[in-house]
Amino acid sequence: MIKLKPKKLLLCALASVMAFGIIGGAWGLEERHAIAAESKPESKKIKNVIFMIGDGMGFSYTAAHRYMKDNPDTPLMEKTLFDQHLVGSQMTYPEDPKENITDSASAATAMSAGVKTYNNAIAVDNDHSRVKTVLEHAKGKGMSTGLVATSEVTHATPAAFGAHEDSRKSMDQIADDYFDEWVYGKHKIDVMLGGGKSNFARKDRDLTKEFQEDGYSYVTNREQLLKDDSEQVLGLFADGGLDKMIDRNSETPSLKDMTESAIKRLDKNEEGFFLMVEGSQIDWAGHDNDVVAAMSEMEDFEQSLQAVLEFAEKDGETLVVLTADHSTGGFSLGTDGKYSFDVAPIKAAKRTPDYMAAKIAGGADVEQTLKAYIDLELKPDEIESVKKAAVTKEVTEIDNAIEQIFDKRTFSGWTTGGHTGEDVPLIAYGPGKEQFAGLIDNIDNATKIFKIIDENHK
Amino acid sequence: MIKLKPKKLLLCALASVMAFGIIGGAWGLEERHAIAAESKPESKKIKNVIFMIGDGMGFSYTAAHRYMKDNPDTPLMEKTLFDQHLVGSQMTYPEDPKENITDSASAATAMSAGVKTYNNAIAVDNDHSRVKTVLEHAKGKGMSTGLVATSEVTHATPAAFGAHEDSRKSMDQIADDYFDEWVYGKHKIDVMLGGGKSNFARKDRDLTKEFQEDGYSYVTNREQLLKDDSEQVLGLFADGGLDKMIDRNSETPSLKDMTESAIKRLDKNEEGFFLMVEGSQIDWAGHDNDVVAAMSEMEDFEQSLQAVLEFAEKDGETLVVLTADHSTGGFSLGTDGKYSFDVAPIKAAKRTPDYMAAKIAGGADVEQTLKAYIDLELKPDEIESVKKAAVTKEVTEIDNAIEQIFDKRTFSGWTTGGHTGEDVPLIAYGPGKEQFAGLIDNIDNATKIFKIIDENHK
Repeated sequence: MIKLKPKKLLLCALASVMAFGIIGGAWGLEERHAIAAESKPESKKIKNVIFMIGDGMGFSYTAAHRYMKDNPDTPLMEKTLFDQHLVGSQMTYPEDPKENITDSASAATAMSAGVKTYNNAIAVDNDHSRVKTVLEHAKGKGMSTGLVATSEVTHATPAAFGAHEDSRKSMDQIADDYFDEWVYGKHKIDVMLGGGKSNFARKDRDLTKEFQEDGYSYVTNREQLLKDDSEQVLGLFADGGLDKMIDRNSETPSLKDMTESAIKRLDKNEEGFFLMVEGSQIDWAGHDNDVVAAMSEMEDFEQSLQAVLEFAEKDGETLVVLTADHSTGGFSLGTDGKYSFDVAPIKAAKRTPDYMAAKIAGGADVEQTLKAYIDLELKPDEIESVKKAAVTKEVTEIDNAIEQIFDKRTFSGWTTGGHTGEDVPLIAYGPGKEQFAGLIDNIDNATKIFKIIDENHK
Repeated sequence: MIKLKPKKLLLCALASVMAFGIIGGAWGLEERHAIAAESKPESKKIKNVIFMIGDGMGFSYTAAHRYMKDNPDTPLMEKTLFDQHLVGSQMTYPEDPKENITDSASAATAMSAGVKTYNNAIAVDNDHSRVKTVLEHAKGKGMSTGLVATSEVTHATPAAFGAHEDSRKSMDQIADDYFDEWVYGKHKIDVMLGGGKSNFARKDRDLTKEFQEDGYSYVTNREQLLKDDSEQVLGLFADGGLDKMIDRNSETPSLKDMTESAIKRLDKNEEGFFLMVEGSQIDWAGHDNDVVAAMSEMEDFEQSLQAVLEFAEKDGETLVVLTADHSTGGFSLGTDGKYSFDVAPIKAAKRTPDYMAAKIAGGADVEQTLKAYIDLELKPDEIESVKKAAVTKEVTEIDNAIEQIFDKRTFSGWTTGGHTGEDVPLIAYGPGKEQFAGLIDNIDNATKIFKIIDENHK
């Protein structure tokens, strides 16, 4: 194994050579903000680190998910997997000159590189210098690496672990970075699974071919993903983001499918691995103020966590950390003075309001569509509200009208189409988990993981 | 010392004798829901337990308070006292036949007695049977006991520790319970400090005299409180709730004053004490959707925590647990798509909107009043909005108009005038704190404290 110290680690880019200064900068910051260990870490080796991010998953989302999963036949509410392993919470504020509530790019950079930065930044600091990420550090130590998401795999959160760009909007360039930025003469990301085909297979460049020429498998549906067992794989299952879990067809893998497939490949490396898994669209549902979609994506994310915990339990040398980058939508259980959150209407939805709205905007009958996908007796005024919106033929208008039916019936509240600034849950499992207990800052995640990688991978 | 086992403990009421069955019932429940200890408790003796409740203090409140306290001259946000000692979070759902989001009475009964019950219940279960509280258990073990609140000391939260009523609305009967319900022939609450004079000094009965006849001091302002050092005291500083911190005059003690005074008295007992301290009006501010009042009460509560931690640190045998009963208002940092929470307007307020609205409704000039109590250059349309409301002479209308100025300027969001169902922060300090780590159910607080009292007070 290569045994260079971090400061000597090389990030070689085919297209451009990165400045070394940024790496020193990142380490300097890390030391400045070093956190005293609350308790002694267990002596057990931490071979693998799996870092999971529920994008937008504030405390109201984990509570709502618990209400969804509650068994009504037992006196108490059952704890979800998130609940069972909660160890604390996390602060999410950015260091942006204009805003003090974070976006996903800044938050992911904090968690991947230990650096507070401006909103929009993909693993660059406020001086636009590139900062080293824990994924790059892991690769430098000979570990395998992976990124899994239900958004484009080039979206802000995964991007901040595997690319460096001034703007999250540069998704094509982020895909280029995934290919062009090497660590010790090797591609830095072994497993990339998610959406975003259009960012890789472009008119100006076809990265799907370039990756294949370099030995990667390329898969585009669930069956191919499950059959393939290459250690290096690019899996792109949609042009943009994947469908929401309850809208998916059998060709689209679940987050759990992708997570299990990633682990299977990465675990072949005796030096261990770093894997980032994102439940990307909890956030998208929050931006849309769509409680049905939010609960769909929470379920998808919890199933992925289940797969991760099953592996980690068997393996015994895997640290699992799960958190959110921020909360989204100002979502509340209970609204307008009502002391209830009724999950029955959410369970009655077979598809998201977005899915139904697209059908209706495409010409499908309002009443028939609602009847087909919502297992509830809708009231005439509810149907009428959607019919009224359908006249506009605007998907957004129709979507909003359907969402309002669910908001009113479930008593879901929302304050914004953006993000909110409260702390988010922190879950940890496996050796080293005690290091994440209590309230930590988002940058502490990276600081601790850099240290864990150093201590366990000489 | 009296050494009866819990099941033999007598709750003797002058007015009525309590059924013993309820005590067995409470213990049965406790065993049914017993939680496996996550880690071994420290061997250190836990002589005293201080249980603090930030009524309505969800995660958005502790984050907003941190934004308020941030030192802009340092790169990172400073941790508040709440932050420094966070160990996990708490589920708050009630066991109400009609509602699945809790009120303060049900939540306080869960935390005081370990029993999920209906909204409105004051230490009675769903069969309306009285359930034993940790305060009563402490008194039965020879410990001293106290209740401190900024609401009426007979309000739902303190009441559920020291009284038993079918309805929280029976505040006069709750005051009666405080006097009439004895444990081993003694009054069960040694220190009662807060508001609610009108519930004690009534036409039909004057409990302030009855308590004095039984040897209690009775104090009604800050100076009297600080001068008096009786081990038993009734301190009532307002007819209803106390003024909010930023509205108080020098005659009214702060929550810190009351807390320090309570500890000074209770600590004289070598057998130790149980004290419940409530930051009552964080919740009232939340119901009112008033971010200025909410931050006033968060500051009052943190200062009280500071006093508690200073005592606990010196004492070394005091367990401090601090949590909330639920969150209130669906309060969010950031609203309407804005990625900021601006605390400057809150800091510019010298009084709450309620205070200003009362002045204006009483005939004070709108513009002069706003100028006197808000250290900001208000815009003409902001002043106009309050003038318009002032025409109605309705305090609520005027209050809402002033609050909207702060909501818009701070980017505070609200979804309800009621409570919300997400989990709330859990803070713990001192010997035994590790027992409260992770995600616990609200009833677990009582279960653990019953056990801690048993183990440490034979």
